[in-house]
Amino acid sequence: MMEEDPNPVAEESSPNGMAGEADGEERDPGSISLKQPLLKRHRTLSSNPLAMVGAKVAHIESLDYEINENDLFKHDWRSRSKVQVLQYIFLKWTLAFLVGLLTGIIATLINLAVENIAGYKLLAVVHFIEKERYLTGFLLFTGTNFILTLFAAVLCVCFAPTAAGPGIPEIKAYLNGVDTPNMFGASTLIVKIVGSIGAVSAGLDLGKEGPLVHIGSCIASLLGQGGPDDYRLRWRWLRYFNNDRDRRDLITCGASSGVCAAFRAPVGGVLFSLEEVATWWRSALLWRTFFSTAIVAVVLRAFIEYCNTGSCGLFGQGGLIMFDVSNVTVRYHVMDIIPVTVIGIIGGVLGSLYNYVLHKVLRLYSMINQKGRIHKLLLSLMVSLFTSICLYGLPFLAKCTKCDPSLMDSVCPTTGRSGNFKQFNCPDGYYNDLATLLLTTNDDAVRNIFSTNTPSEYHAMSLLIFFALYWILGVFTFGIAVPSGLFLPIILIGSAYGRLLGMAMGSYTNIDQGLYAVLGAASLMSGSMRMTVSLCVIFLELTNNLLLLPITMIVLLISKTVGDSFNPSIYEIILELKGLPFLDANPEPWMRNLTVGELADAKPALVTLCGVEKVSRIVEVLKNTVHNGFPVVDEGVLPPAGLATRAMELHGLILRAHLVQVIKKKWFLQERRRTEDWEVREMFSWIDLAEREGKIEEVAVTRDEMEMYVDLHPFTNTTPYTVVESMSVAKAMVLFRQVGLRHMLIVPKYQAAGVSPVVGILSRQDLRAYNILAAFPHLAKSKGREGEH
Amino acid sequence: MMEEDPNPVAEESSPNGMAGEADGEERDPGSISLKQPLLKRHRTLSSNPLAMVGAKVAHIESLDYEINENDLFKHDWRSRSKVQVLQYIFLKWTLAFLVGLLTGIIATLINLAVENIAGYKLLAVVHFIEKERYLTGFLLFTGTNFILTLFAAVLCVCFAPTAAGPGIPEIKAYLNGVDTPNMFGASTLIVKIVGSIGAVSAGLDLGKEGPLVHIGSCIASLLGQGGPDDYRLRWRWLRYFNNDRDRRDLITCGASSGVCAAFRAPVGGVLFSLEEVATWWRSALLWRTFFSTAIVAVVLRAFIEYCNTGSCGLFGQGGLIMFDVSNVTVRYHVMDIIPVTVIGIIGGVLGSLYNYVLHKVLRLYSMINQKGRIHKLLLSLMVSLFTSICLYGLPFLAKCTKCDPSLMDSVCPTTGRSGNFKQFNCPDGYYNDLATLLLTTNDDAVRNIFSTNTPSEYHAMSLLIFFALYWILGVFTFGIAVPSGLFLPIILIGSAYGRLLGMAMGSYTNIDQGLYAVLGAASLMSGSMRMTVSLCVIFLELTNNLLLLPITMIVLLISKTVGDSFNPSIYEIILELKGLPFLDANPEPWMRNLTVGELADAKPALVTLCGVEKVSRIVEVLKNTVHNGFPVVDEGVLPPAGLATRAMELHGLILRAHLVQVIKKKWFLQERRRTEDWEVREMFSWIDLAEREGKIEEVAVTRDEMEMYVDLHPFTNTTPYTVVESMSVAKAMVLFRQVGLRHMLIVPKYQAAGVSPVVGILSRQDLRAYNILAAFPHLAKSKGREGEH
Repeated sequence: MMEEDPNPVAEESSPNGMAGEADGEERDPGSISLKQPLLKRHRTLSSNPLAMVGAKVAHIESLDYEINENDLFKHDWRSRSKVQVLQYIFLKWTLAFLVGLLTGIIATLINLAVENIAGYKLLAVVHFIEKERYLTGFLLFTGTNFILTLFAAVLCVCFAPTAAGPGIPEIKAYLNGVDTPNMFGASTLIVKIVGSIGAVSAGLDLGKEGPLVHIGSCIASLLGQGGPDDYRLRWRWLRYFNNDRDRRDLITCGASSGVCAAFRAPVGGVLFSLEEVATWWRSALLWRTFFSTAIVAVVLRAFIEYCNTGSCGLFGQGGLIMFDVSNVTVRYHVMDIIPVTVIGIIGGVLGSLYNYVLHKVLRLYSMINQKGRIHKLLLSLMVSLFTSICLYGLPFLAKCTKCDPSLMDSVCPTTGRSGNFKQFNCPDGYYNDLATLLLTTNDDAVRNIFSTNTPSEYHAMSLLIFFALYWILGVFTFGIAVPSGLFLPIILIGSAYGRLLGMAMGSYTNIDQGLYAVLGAASLMSGSMRMTVSLCVIFLELTNNLLLLPITMIVLLISKTVGDSFNPSIYEIILELKGLPFLDANPEPWMRNLTVGELADAKPALVTLCGVEKVSRIVEVLKNTVHNGFPVVDEGVLPPAGLATRAMELHGLILRAHLVQVIKKKWFLQERRRTEDWEVREMFSWIDLAEREGKIEEVAVTRDEMEMYVDLHPFTNTTPYTVVESMSVAKAMVLFRQVGLRHMLIVPKYQAAGVSPVVGILSRQDLRAYNILAAFPHLAKSKGREGEH
Repeated sequence: MMEEDPNPVAEESSPNGMAGEADGEERDPGSISLKQPLLKRHRTLSSNPLAMVGAKVAHIESLDYEINENDLFKHDWRSRSKVQVLQYIFLKWTLAFLVGLLTGIIATLINLAVENIAGYKLLAVVHFIEKERYLTGFLLFTGTNFILTLFAAVLCVCFAPTAAGPGIPEIKAYLNGVDTPNMFGASTLIVKIVGSIGAVSAGLDLGKEGPLVHIGSCIASLLGQGGPDDYRLRWRWLRYFNNDRDRRDLITCGASSGVCAAFRAPVGGVLFSLEEVATWWRSALLWRTFFSTAIVAVVLRAFIEYCNTGSCGLFGQGGLIMFDVSNVTVRYHVMDIIPVTVIGIIGGVLGSLYNYVLHKVLRLYSMINQKGRIHKLLLSLMVSLFTSICLYGLPFLAKCTKCDPSLMDSVCPTTGRSGNFKQFNCPDGYYNDLATLLLTTNDDAVRNIFSTNTPSEYHAMSLLIFFALYWILGVFTFGIAVPSGLFLPIILIGSAYGRLLGMAMGSYTNIDQGLYAVLGAASLMSGSMRMTVSLCVIFLELTNNLLLLPITMIVLLISKTVGDSFNPSIYEIILELKGLPFLDANPEPWMRNLTVGELADAKPALVTLCGVEKVSRIVEVLKNTVHNGFPVVDEGVLPPAGLATRAMELHGLILRAHLVQVIKKKWFLQERRRTEDWEVREMFSWIDLAEREGKIEEVAVTRDEMEMYVDLHPFTNTTPYTVVESMSVAKAMVLFRQVGLRHMLIVPKYQAAGVSPVVGILSRQDLRAYNILAAFPHLAKSKGREGEH
C-alpha cells in the first residue's frame, strides 16, 4: 500500500487511528496476521520519496504503466468502434511524425543560431587580433561569453531549474516509471532551447547533444498532451493519449529524435534509446521510433541542402555527416591490436576517473547551488570567466607553425572563417595550432582534431595543453545552471589523447592520426557512458568510415570492460546523486535470500478497503496515508459452491486518484449496496478517470455525506499482478520491472478461514536495494556479485 | 499442470484413475472446487503438442528459462565461492569468443569452398562455350549441379532432416522457449555446413545466409554443452552452463555471429538477433553478442587479408564490404520521394505476395515430402534440373551488347573470372547481359546487378527475364530438402525490379541505377521479412553508402507498412506452418474478456502432489500424465499464529524431470516425514538436477518401494510465478512471456477453509490464441485489432 512513504507522521498524529484501524483486519478480531507485522516492527522498511529536481528537492511519484482493467475501462474498451481504433493508430503515427519534424526543425534552428552568434563573435575577436589589439579582443571575447552565460543561467535559474543539465538521466528515470515533476513542461522546453543556444555560443565546454534529447522528449510530451501543462487544450482525439503508457512511447520517440538530430545519426538515435534510455521495449516501438528519426534525418537534410545555397549566414557548408573521415583509406594489420588495446584501456581508466571526479564536483556544486539563486548564478559566471581566459590566453603559449607549402594560401592560414589552420597571432604563412582547437566552436574543434591526412598539424605540447584544459573544464562546467550536454566535452577530451597516442605511435602504425582521435573519443565515451552498440553506430554515422568498424568495436568493448570494473556509468551516478528511484535491470544477488512476505512484514500495517466502503473511512484513509493504491477486499461474499463458511475475496486494487475523483463527484449511496453498471456509467467515463489532478484536502465532504457509502467495485482494477508471499524479492523485482508495475499485491501462501486474501503491497520504493538494506542490514554481508545471472 | 497435452489418452485408460484422483482435493471431500471444472467440461481446452521438425512430425517440449529456486539451488548458490563466480564469468566470455571465432572460420571455409567449386565449374563451362560446344557445356553444367544437389539432399534426407531450410524460424522459437528436437546437434551442424556448400555451389536459387545463422547457433549450443549431444564431454567448468537460460544466451550470440558472418555486418548481426530472433533481451546480452560479432568481423578481415595475396584459389579479391556501392555520390532532391515511395509500395505488395505464394508452395511440398525420402530427393533433383536448364538456356535469348568503348578490354568482355560483362556466346567486344546475371554465383549476381555508374549495362528485357526467373525459382527452391536461406533470393528478385524502375525513371532522377537496385532489394526484404532497423543497418554495412540511409529508411518503412496490411512476416508464416507454439508479443484483444480462472476451468482437473508424497502416487502421476510441472501443496500444516483451523499451504512447483531423478535414485523414506537439509544434499546436488534425461518408464520400482514416501520439499521451486484467478488472459500472457515462464500457477481470489491454494496451472500451449479459441469459440466474434496496445 505504501507507495512512496510509510508516513510516520500520519502514524504519530493518529495514534489510535490509521495505522491499526486502517487495516481491514480490525473487523475480524480472530485474525492475528495483523499483529504479526507489529511484533516485527523493529525492522521497518522506510523509503525516501524525495529527489533532486533541478537544484531543489521535490517529492517524486511513480507512473502507471500497467493497464488499469476496471469495469469502466473494460466497458469503454469494448465499445470502441473500429473508427476510433483507426483514429488512435493514425494519431499515434501522426504524433511520431510531428515529433520528428519539430525536433528536426528546432535542432536546425539551434545550430543556426549557435553558428551565427559564435561565428560573428569569433570573427570580431579575430579582427582585433589581426590588428594586434589583443586586450580589446580579450574584453570582447570574455564580455560576450559572460553576457551569453548570464542570459542562459538567469533563464535556467529563474524560470525552469529543471532545464539545467542534460536531462537524459531524468528521461531515463521517466521511462523506468519515475515521474520527475516539471521535466517536460513548456517553460522547460523554451528555456532549454534558448538557454542551450546561449550556453553553447558562450564557448562553454558543453554540448547541445544532451539538451537536444531533452528537447525532443519535451516536444513529444507536449504534443501528447495537446499543449502546455497549464493551459492544456482538450482535443477530443487526444483523449486516448492521456495515460502514462502512450506518453512513455511518445517520449521514447522524442529521445531518439533528439539523438538523431544531435549527431545526424538516425539509426544511432534509435539504438541510443534502446540501449541506454528505455527500460521496456517492444518491436512496435522500435518501428515507430525509427519512423521519427527517419523524419528528423529528412528534415535535417532538407535544411542542409537549403543552407548550402548560402542563405543561412555563417551556418556551415557540411553535409549530413558531421565529422567525415571517409577520405582516408583504413589500412591496419595485426600488430595494430596493441595501440588499439592501449586506447581502449586508457579510455576505460580515464572514463571511470572522469565519472569519479565529476561525482565529487557535482556533490560540491549541489551544496553551493542549494545556498540560493545568486550562488548558482555566480558559479556559472565564474566558470564562464575561467573558460574565456583559458581559451583566449592559452594559444599565446603555442609556437607558430609554418604552413605546409603544399597547401594553398586559401587553406593555410585560415582567417575569417572556420578552418583547420588559424592564424591568430602568427605572421602570414604561419598558423597557431592551439588557436585552431580553442578559438572556435566545439563542433569545429572536433572537426579540426579529427582532421585526417595532416600528420604534422599539431604539436604534442598543444594537444597536451588542450587535453588538460578540457579535462578541467569538462569536470567543472557540467554542473552549472545552464543546459549542458556531456557528449561533446567527452569527445574533445578523448580525441586529444587519441591523437597524442597516434603521434606517439609514429611509423609503427598505418592508421591515420585523425582516426586515432576518433578512436580516442569513442573509447572515452564508452569508458564514461558504458554503451556499446549505440555508440558504435553513432560513431559510424558521425564519421562515415565503415572500415573502422571492427577496431571501433574492440575499443568500445575494452574501455567498457575496464570502466565497469571501477564504477557505474555516468548516468547511473547522476541518477543516484539525484535520488531518483530507478529500478535496475538485475536484482542484487542477496535479494534471493529474502521473501516478499518478510519484506511486507517490515512495512507498516496494510490498509485495505471494502468493496462497498463508508465515505468517512475513505476520506480518513486518503487524508492519513500517502499511499497511491489500496487493495479492495470483499468480506463474507457468497462462497464458492459447497463451502460451509463465508469467504473473503480479493477484488483488486483501487488507485488514490480514482478515489479522489469519486469523492469529488460525490457519487455516494444511501445504503451499503452494489451498484449496477449503468449507474456508474452515467457519472463517470474512462476518460474522467485518466485525470490525476485534485487532492483530497481540496474536497469538502459534509457530515451527512460522511455516513454514506461508495461502491468501489466499478473503479477497482480487478486484474492486479500478484506474487505469493514465499516469492523471493529477486524474482518479484524481475516481474515488477519487466511488466512495468506501480503496485504489486502479495497474496498468502496459506489457505484457511481468517487469513486475509492479501497480505501486503509492494511499490517501487520497497524494491530498491538501498531501502531494503536499511531494514535488513544483515543481508549486506551476504552481498556479492552473482555474475549477471 | 498440463504442460503440453491434456492427455485424453491417459484419461481414458484410467477412467476411475488419474484424472479425478490426481487432484489433491480427493482427500478433502468437503471441497467442491474439484467438481466445478468437471461440470464445465463441455468447454475443453485442448492443445496440439506436435510440430514439423524437418519433414517429420515430432513432439515439442518447452524450455525452462525461469530460475528454479529450490532448496538445492539455493544452497548451491549460497555456497558458490568467488572463484567459481569468476570462473563462470570468464567462461561465459570465452564461449562468446569461441562462438565468434568458429563461426567466422567456418563461414570463411564455406565461402572458400563455394567460390572454388562454383568457380571451376563455371570456368569449365565457359571453356566449352568459347569453343561453341554448347551441348557439352550444358551437360557439364547440369550434371555438376545435379550431383552437387544430390549430395546435399542425400545428406539432409538421410542424416539430418532438421538441417534442411534456413533454421531461423526454429531458432526464433527456441529463444521464445520452444525446444525443437535435434535442431542443434553435431550431425545437424556438419550436414548444414557440407550441404550448404553443395547446394550453393549447385547454383540453386538459395543463399548461405540463413544456414550460417543456424550454423552459428549450432556451434554455440555444442560449445555450451562441451561437445556433441551423444558423446557429451563432462567438463567440470561447464556445469553452470547446463541450463536453458545460459544456453539461450549462447544461442543468441551464435545467431548474431551467423548474420555477421553472412553479411560481414557486425552491428547488423546484433540488431538482427535483437529485432527478429530474440524474444527476451538484456543489456548484458547486447554487449556479449556485440563481442561475438566483433570477433567474427576480425576473423573475416584476417582471412580476406590473407586471401588477397592470392592463396585461396578463386576466392574473391573483395574487402570487408560485400556489395560496395560507395563509389557513387548520392544526390537526391525532394521529387525523388516519388520513385522511392513507388519502390516501397512495390516491395510491400510483392513481398506479401511472395509470402502468400511461398506459403502455398510449402504446404504442397510438405505433402510431397511426407510421402518418403525418395520423394524428397526427387523433388530436390527436379528443382535442380529446372534451375540448370533455365540458367544455361535463357542467356541464349538475350541479344549481345557491344562493349562501351571507354572500358578497357580487360574489363569488357569478362572471360575466365567473375566480372560484370560476360562474353558467353557473344563475339569479342560484345557481352551477354543475361549471362552476366545468370551464369555466375548468386553473390556475384548481386554484385553485378548492384553495379553503379553503368546505366546502359542491362536491357530491360534481360532484367525482366531475370526477375521472372528468380521469382519462380525463389518460390520453388526454398522448400526442398537442402540447407537454404531466404535472404539472397529475395535480394536478387528485389534488385531486379529496383533496377528496372531506375531505368524507367530515366533522367527524372539523379539516383544511380545501382542504388535503385539496392533500394529494390531492401524493399522486398522488408516487404517479406518485415524488419526495419536491423535491415537498415545490414544494408548500410553491405553497401557502405551512408548517404543512402534516409531513403533506405523510408523505403523500409513503406514496404513494411504495406506488407503488414496483407499478411504476417515470412518467419511467422513458417512458424505457424510448422506448428511451433510461438508466443506472440502482443496478446489478442479478445483475451481481455477471459480470465485465467475460466481458462483453468476448461482444462482437465488439476493434479497436485503432497509435500511428502507416496512413491506409488508419484509413479502413477508420472506415468498417466504428460505434464511437466506439478504444484506441491501441504495440507494441515501448522497454521499461521492464531488461526483455529489447520491451513493448506502452497509450497511451490516441482518439475517432472526432478521427480524422475528422485525415483531413479530411489531416495525414499520409510515413514511420512520431512527430511533435513543434509540428508538430501548427500544424495543430490544442483548439477544432478540439471539433467533432463530419463523417462519414468525406464525406472523399475519394486512393490515395497511403492509403499514408501518421498519428501518433495527440497526439490520444489518455492517461488513460482502466480496469478490470481480473476486475472485476464491478456495480462497473464504478458507476464508469461516477459518473464519467460514455462508454468504459471493460478491462485484463488477467495480465502476460506476448503479452498485449494492453487486452482490451476497454465503453460505455453494454454495461452496460445488458437487453442483458446477452440475452447471458447464465442470469443472469436469479439475479435478485432486493438491497435498495438
